[in-house]
Amino acid sequence: MSDFTSGKVWLVGAGPGDPELLTRKAERLLRQASVVFYDALVGPGVLDLAPQARLVHVGKRSGRHSKDQGTIDQLIVAAALQGEKVVRLKGGDPSVFGRATEELDACRAAGISVAICPGVTAASAAAASLGASLTLRGLARRLTLVTAHAKAGEDLDLDWQALADPQATLAVYMGKAAAAEVSAKLIAAGLAADTPVAMVENASLPEERIFRTRLDLLALAARTALGDGPALLLIGQAMGAAVDPVMADASAQVERIG
Amino acid sequence: MSDFTSGKVWLVGAGPGDPELLTRKAERLLRQASVVFYDALVGPGVLDLAPQARLVHVGKRSGRHSKDQGTIDQLIVAAALQGEKVVRLKGGDPSVFGRATEELDACRAAGISVAICPGVTAASAAAASLGASLTLRGLARRLTLVTAHAKAGEDLDLDWQALADPQATLAVYMGKAAAAEVSAKLIAAGLAADTPVAMVENASLPEERIFRTRLDLLALAARTALGDGPALLLIGQAMGAAVDPVMADASAQVERIG
Repeated sequence: MSDFTSGKVWLVGAGPGDPELLTRKAERLLRQASVVFYDALVGPGVLDLAPQARLVHVGKRSGRHSKDQGTIDQLIVAAALQGEKVVRLKGGDPSVFGRATEELDACRAAGISVAICPGVTAASAAAASLGASLTLRGLARRLTLVTAHAKAGEDLDLDWQALADPQATLAVYMGKAAAAEVSAKLIAAGLAADTPVAMVENASLPEERIFRTRLDLLALAARTALGDGPALLLIGQAMGAAVDPVMADASAQVERIG
Repeated sequence: MSDFTSGKVWLVGAGPGDPELLTRKAERLLRQASVVFYDALVGPGVLDLAPQARLVHVGKRSGRHSKDQGTIDQLIVAAALQGEKVVRLKGGDPSVFGRATEELDACRAAGISVAICPGVTAASAAAASLGASLTLRGLARRLTLVTAHAKAGEDLDLDWQALADPQATLAVYMGKAAAAEVSAKLIAAGLAADTPVAMVENASLPEERIFRTRLDLLALAARTALGDGPALLLIGQAMGAAVDPVMADASAQVERIG
């Protein structure tokens, strides 16, 4: 069974990092690809599934732009026009903060057939690692995903009033750098200072780390606990009231300092 | 490699329906299970991956409760205590409107080891089918998921003001029955009447159907176009302005009737 005509492009969700959390379809597409353009957030275990393909790193990470979006679009289109079987591999799900639109538009404008293979998004993987649901009847009736990836020095332009809903779970992607702003803005907008927060770094990977804290301690917790991996912040009552010993210590310190 | 100790429970996301959109890990767990408790929304192609297991249908669908949650909890716990390798298979992702908490709590209360394997949620699959991103820089900065699954005769108890954000994409799970209310409440809360809506029924399955409409025509479109399959409503500028011919006709009819 072939999913590729020559010159077709698949935007493929690589999932949160663990190669086992790739979909069966994504694996099949990777095994058929002749070239794979992949992001910084896609791990080596995933790329091992495409030993036959040429692997091209087009990653962008916070602060380090290795290739701009226009260049990536051109690379993809050029490969497809040369008859390659192109996989554009994106961390998580291509339709959630994946900037899929630019690449879809570029392919369509060039008359290239393009399709999306969905993936497991980081919030789902983080919840699985926490052993928790993101939604709870009566307590967390909606789930909102935002990305905190803003240009350096710019405020996040988000509707904090709408986000500060005690009956929602808020997932903040790429949340480390913005943790202080997220905490301050949500509290200013009325969300309780003791709202539970889970921070999940490198969700689903062997180096995954999980920390629990509360909204008013989030800035300190993110600064002291998180490393350089992509971090997801999960904020809301569904994250439970449990506070790990480490964070309880940090909390005690804050209280002493303050 | 075994993921199961005897008497362990895995809550496994079956994804949106297409067996190819199951994760590799979910497939591996299914192949090891001795018993699989599955929902109505889990398709036959997925269950084919566990030919060795006893398959127990514990499905609930709108209006038809075949087993209540307490009974499901008891079945899972009893199987685990008998030393079975238990997979609790849930449509989509267990942490998103999957009522995972009840089952996690029941297992933990009985001293049973329980873990979650995440899945692709319906919104991601629907976006893939639409060939569209759910988020767009500057235009759709957040994605909110809600479920419209309410008790018969009850209003949906949602914060419509917060949901009526022109810069967000709103995904309404199980949205058919509530389409009229969703449309009326969002417009009353200030969302533009011509906000694009995509309705995706049976996302990712062979019987998938996609309709595009606009917010003020959503009630009519849902009633006339959608069948009995699970339907996701995607509402927001990211869904684009395109209106399919069928819906354009329905729109013309509404204008004539009105």
